[in-house]
Amino acid sequence: VPKVVDHELRRREIGEALWRVVRRDGVHGATVRAVAAEAGWSASALRHYFTSQDELLTFTMQLVADRAAERIAALPAAGDPRARAEQALSEVLPLDADRRLENAVWMAFNARALTDPALRAVQDSTYDAIHALCRRVVADLVVDQPPAGRRLLAHELNVLLDGLAVHAALRPSRWPPRQLRRVLSHYLDRLAERR
Amino acid sequence: VPKVVDHELRRREIGEALWRVVRRDGVHGATVRAVAAEAGWSASALRHYFTSQDELLTFTMQLVADRAAERIAALPAAGDPRARAEQALSEVLPLDADRRLENAVWMAFNARALTDPALRAVQDSTYDAIHALCRRVVADLVVDQPPAGRRLLAHELNVLLDGLAVHAALRPSRWPPRQLRRVLSHYLDRLAERR
Repeated sequence: VPKVVDHELRRREIGEALWRVVRRDGVHGATVRAVAAEAGWSASALRHYFTSQDELLTFTMQLVADRAAERIAALPAAGDPRARAEQALSEVLPLDADRRLENAVWMAFNARALTDPALRAVQDSTYDAIHALCRRVVADLVVDQPPAGRRLLAHELNVLLDGLAVHAALRPSRWPPRQLRRVLSHYLDRLAERR
Repeated sequence: VPKVVDHELRRREIGEALWRVVRRDGVHGATVRAVAAEAGWSASALRHYFTSQDELLTFTMQLVADRAAERIAALPAAGDPRARAEQALSEVLPLDADRRLENAVWMAFNARALTDPALRAVQDSTYDAIHALCRRVVADLVVDQPPAGRRLLAHELNVLLDGLAVHAALRPSRWPPRQLRRVLSHYLDRLAERR
């Protein structure tokens, strides 16, 4: 079905152009016009794929989720559970320039979703993926708790990750990567003690 | 100095009108025009106090911080530290209609601050107040940790509170007050075990 393949290829091409614009001009610079120019398309051709700024932002967020998921999938599947947990969770924290951009996209999307409930539905798959990661980490590190306690710990870890992301975005000078790592590492030490 | 008193009285009057508008129309309904109408002022008289929407939003956030601080100050100073900690922290979580509005103001302010770094400086005093609360809670509940560990726990708790606020704002159906209370309570149980 060549039409579908083409569509997917085009979207990937757009995704790459989009990410170059985000890297260069920030989330708010990623307008339909700017992304079209970067991809060498006309704005009207790009509007065939994205009819609004919100659709473009949604696509950007999906791109961010895919990038993080690919990095996590590429991590070694064996090894010390405590170290593996920290590696996987680090992939969704703003610990370097690329992940800071991803975090900025995530924050911009949240900010838009606050005033536009229609966007919230789109977030659900991303939230669910991060929550599944948190559940796996808790299952690997905590075995002496009843299922209800483990469920609460997975929610707690999920909430902690978003809190770290918010603090890092809003107060970058107080939350450099070293501080983010320190808090996460200390948290996981406490969690792993329950084994 | 009657002029200063007048100014303070006026600001309080505006604050009350502002809060009625926020309760009725949400954060985004609180425009200079709407607040002036509610207070029975002309828009131009109100602009003597607030020249922009950002200044009004900043004042609203200060109001939210004052409200929470007053409630916390009114709590009993004696009693079981674990129960007192939960009471105090509950005052900054969106557990009822009023605190959900306060949370919505906080989220709206954060969203604006993401694109306007000048607003971030204003947040610092509020963040510092919440962080001081977190430090007190950790000092009351955790005594067997070195100071460095307690500092990290205070940051962790601070981050957790903001994560809860974000989740509650963005996914209210998955984070009803009961769920917020459950996660906070379970977290404090784990924290208090370290005594």
